[in-house]
Amino acid sequence: VTDALEELRARLAAFAMARNWGRFHDPKNLVMALSGEVGELTALFQWTTSDEARAIMTTEKRTDVEDELADVMIYLVRLADELGVDLIAAAQAKTDRNEQRFPTV
Amino acid sequence: VTDALEELRARLAAFAMARNWGRFHDPKNLVMALSGEVGELTALFQWTTSDEARAIMTTEKRTDVEDELADVMIYLVRLADELGVDLIAAAQAKTDRNEQRFPTV
Amino acid sequence: VTDALEELRARLAAFAMARNWGRFHDPKNLVMALSGEVGELTALFQWTTSDEARAIMTTEKRTDVEDELADVMIYLVRLADELGVDLIAAAQAKTDRNEQRFPTV
Amino acid sequence: VTDALEELRARLAAFAMARNWGRFHDPKNLVMALSGEVGELTALFQWTTSDEARAIMTTEKRTDVEDELADVMIYLVRLADELGVDLIAAAQAKTDRNEQRFPTV
Repeated sequence: VTDALEELRARLAAFAMARNWGRFHDPKNLVMALSGEVGELTALFQWTTSDEARAIMTTEKRTDVEDELADVMIYLVRLADELGVDLIAAAQAKTDRNEQRFPTV
Repeated sequence: VTDALEELRARLAAFAMARNWGRFHDPKNLVMALSGEVGELTALFQWTTSDEARAIMTTEKRTDVEDELADVMIYLVRLADELGVDLIAAAQAKTDRNEQRFPTV
Repeated sequence: VTDALEELRARLAAFAMARNWGRFHDPKNLVMALSGEVGELTALFQWTTSDEARAIMTTEKRTDVEDELADVMIYLVRLADELGVDLIAAAQAKTDRNEQRFPTV
Repeated sequence: VTDALEELRARLAAFAMARNWGRFHDPKNLVMALSGEVGELTALFQWTTSDEARAIMTTEKRTDVEDELADVMIYLVRLADELGVDLIAAAQAKTDRNEQRFPTV
């Protein structure tokens, strides 16, 4: 069984390599690309109320939201890969620490 | 076999629910939180050269980079979950389209 | 003599009022709009080398850079106005503190 | 009479030069610094409701908001200066175009 995120990581690395994008995909550039895509995602929510934002997937913006989430995910996976960071392990370790920081009663 | 990303998604949802954070974790707020964390990640790279950025995991910034990548991942997974978007499916579909858009020779 | 930034602030406030945009231009939304525009500005620089970035105003991207800088300025001025913050005074006060923090020899 | 924004621009340029920060303050790095500061500003608003955001200057976050607005302004002015862009002229020209795009009745 191949893990879904590992499969995506490998596909995106191969995709960049096949196009000779290694010279573009250095960490500094990938951080900027990630940041640019988060900016586009943010723009989809900027004039909505909180209630409208909750219902955004029932509107014609649905496809744009999926598209921008995909772009953010793609650059986050590529960046972590270039840096040699395991996103799942890092997020799980951070959540372990958050459980100490924010205990439930 | 549980998928690693699905396991993280479920843990983060349970984590927020156990702390009654539902009123904070609406999509508009989560987009802002994601954007804030990407800002902190960006700050780690802003004065580095491209070469220094490539070597950042061999420096004392290593832990900060892992930590910020974790925070970005956590808010991205929470946001997608609140919106009902499957990040892997969205990223794979986008990569299918990118293969059409950027053909190899 | 009218100060140029004060003149811009007043024009942008009148522009929003004439279009009844008050309900959109609350601080939370304006922060997101500012962030979205910075994302678009970032995207113009993401794949350039540092040298290419320095020469960007001699390329066909010149107009886009001016346009995005204008958008960032517009939302920053609108946001500060809604919050009642004097941008010049705030930046001068911060620079006073930076002079203490980073003394020259 | 010296214009307030021109005075700030000149002070910030002299400040960077006196500290030999020219090698750091290239456009690519300054865009990242601007983006990082907008991220910190965003973080101040991420969990607030729209009403709380409107009243933020009456809370203990007041100083942080002024501080982050100052940092955003400082990097925006530095970036525009390095690129040779007049922020006021660019914002006024963009607003001229916006008046065509969004006519009042």
